[in-house]
Amino acid sequence: MKAVLVEEKTRRLYIGEAEDPVPKEDELLVSVYATALNRADLVQKRGLYPPPPGTTDILGLEMAGVVEKVGKHVTGWKPGDRVCSLLPGGGYAEKVVIPAEMAIRIPDSFSFEEAAAIPEVFLTAYLNLFWLGGLKAGHTVLIHAGASGVGTAAIQLVREAGAISIVTAGTETKRTTCLELGASLALDYKAGPFAPAVKEATNGKGVNIILDFIGAPYWEQNLSSLAIDGRLIIIGIMGGSKVPTLDLGQLLRRRLQVIGTALRSRSVADKIALTKEFTSFAMPRFQDGRLKPIIDSVWDWEQAQEAHEYMESNKNTGKIVLQIKK
Amino acid sequence: MKAVLVEEKTRRLYIGEAEDPVPKEDELLVSVYATALNRADLVQKRGLYPPPPGTTDILGLEMAGVVEKVGKHVTGWKPGDRVCSLLPGGGYAEKVVIPAEMAIRIPDSFSFEEAAAIPEVFLTAYLNLFWLGGLKAGHTVLIHAGASGVGTAAIQLVREAGAISIVTAGTETKRTTCLELGASLALDYKAGPFAPAVKEATNGKGVNIILDFIGAPYWEQNLSSLAIDGRLIIIGIMGGSKVPTLDLGQLLRRRLQVIGTALRSRSVADKIALTKEFTSFAMPRFQDGRLKPIIDSVWDWEQAQEAHEYMESNKNTGKIVLQIKK
Repeated sequence: MKAVLVEEKTRRLYIGEAEDPVPKEDELLVSVYATALNRADLVQKRGLYPPPPGTTDILGLEMAGVVEKVGKHVTGWKPGDRVCSLLPGGGYAEKVVIPAEMAIRIPDSFSFEEAAAIPEVFLTAYLNLFWLGGLKAGHTVLIHAGASGVGTAAIQLVREAGAISIVTAGTETKRTTCLELGASLALDYKAGPFAPAVKEATNGKGVNIILDFIGAPYWEQNLSSLAIDGRLIIIGIMGGSKVPTLDLGQLLRRRLQVIGTALRSRSVADKIALTKEFTSFAMPRFQDGRLKPIIDSVWDWEQAQEAHEYMESNKNTGKIVLQIKK
Repeated sequence: MKAVLVEEKTRRLYIGEAEDPVPKEDELLVSVYATALNRADLVQKRGLYPPPPGTTDILGLEMAGVVEKVGKHVTGWKPGDRVCSLLPGGGYAEKVVIPAEMAIRIPDSFSFEEAAAIPEVFLTAYLNLFWLGGLKAGHTVLIHAGASGVGTAAIQLVREAGAISIVTAGTETKRTTCLELGASLALDYKAGPFAPAVKEATNGKGVNIILDFIGAPYWEQNLSSLAIDGRLIIIGIMGGSKVPTLDLGQLLRRRLQVIGTALRSRSVADKIALTKEFTSFAMPRFQDGRLKPIIDSVWDWEQAQEAHEYMESNKNTGKIVLQIKK
């Protein structure tokens, strides 16, 4: 099969040949129609985020496509079914195998490009808001990088949970998108510190949950933006990981939680449980339009290198999708 | 009524006169027979841990006694009932009022001294192990200060949950008590770093939960002792609160959680919910002897000052109880 590969010297992407994957008894072989970019892909292609043991080297943490073959212990799926799912890797390719239990049925009204934009960001947002954040109706959530893929999914999930979101985003266009998706307030992090505005917007109480991708540079402001019993969820450390000082007394006095999180490294059993719970919450809402994947742009997979450069420039609002088969 | 008061200049304890508390419609007036010491009392008497707003200045976070009067909206309790409970303060006194929903019925076989040794340490251990730690059968828990009041309660609760505990304690006698209560391993923290022994005992995996009272000096060793998805629960910072550096990347890569916790500052609604859940788990086990309060010593309340000095010397294994009424 064809797949997007990484040129060893230049770390540039190109389409080359790879071995066809073979499904095990409880797996599906899927013909991939579309995949989507994640920031982890940028890190992995530089050799800094190796795939979990036993996983293909091919990039791609999610895909949408058509079932081509089902393992002999699989029930409930047949060739021709349209599915999308999380992947530990391998989405930038014509074919991929997945555990049958991780497959999500694509709603009829969704294109493959739309479906490929769902798994990684919505499951990441669901995991961090509900499983780790304990999101409840009435909560307030601060979502950094609100216009990112995970950000746009999180804003919608917070709204559907009957909770309130405040976001940060770096351009007027991005902030407008966040507000349209349901954010109650969109802050320009370039215009000054966000913590005073968060405090004011919450009548001095602070927020119950923070989804953070920035790390060290936001640490102090994040802690001071949390309400009592608040949870700071560290999804990324794009701005740096080393915090110069930590006051455990502050955590104790205000009963704060700091939670490091990652989806990719979790067990298959965890991912299956998460997929099932998410599907039952989200599928009715995708079908009637309450939830929608936010797509920035769709690229032919021949342009994978250009799509990566575009993501590196931080210009996207929502997901960057690669079309593999038309 | 009489109560233990704090001499303003010397910060020494003495028995003096205080106003009788008056129960509201949903409260009980209790004649206190016994109370018990907590480390928070030592801090509060120095003026460093002020009671929550609206709470009496009198020390004492728990008590056991006899119901003297019930508020007119109270059902299920009558004068003469033997009860124990958590308190936000006021236990070092002849009388106290409590919300009726926080009362725990004392098993017939228990003395007031035994009952007074239950609420604070068992509810603290239950909160941190189950609510915040997510304790499950098969987990391994590292319990620092294993021979303390909370430690001895936690070892027993871990055992009853079908999980394994490793403790640290500073004397041979304390370690023996911990092992008798069910700890699988008792480490002498004075003999060297605990982290290598914890790693070895868990086949390199680390522990799922740590209950820590020490804070900054244990920070690095605690983090390195955690398994993937492990939770470090900060109950106290007796050794200091300022950690010189925090690597958020470490939290993220290993999906670690750092959780600051306190029981006293929680809402009454939280404390009632916790008391009810704990009671249904623990009462059958107290009645048949699987759980027991570990009492170091019982002092007449005239000796409250001496009892405090004894606690300050770190010599106790289990609870230090004050007898108020014989």
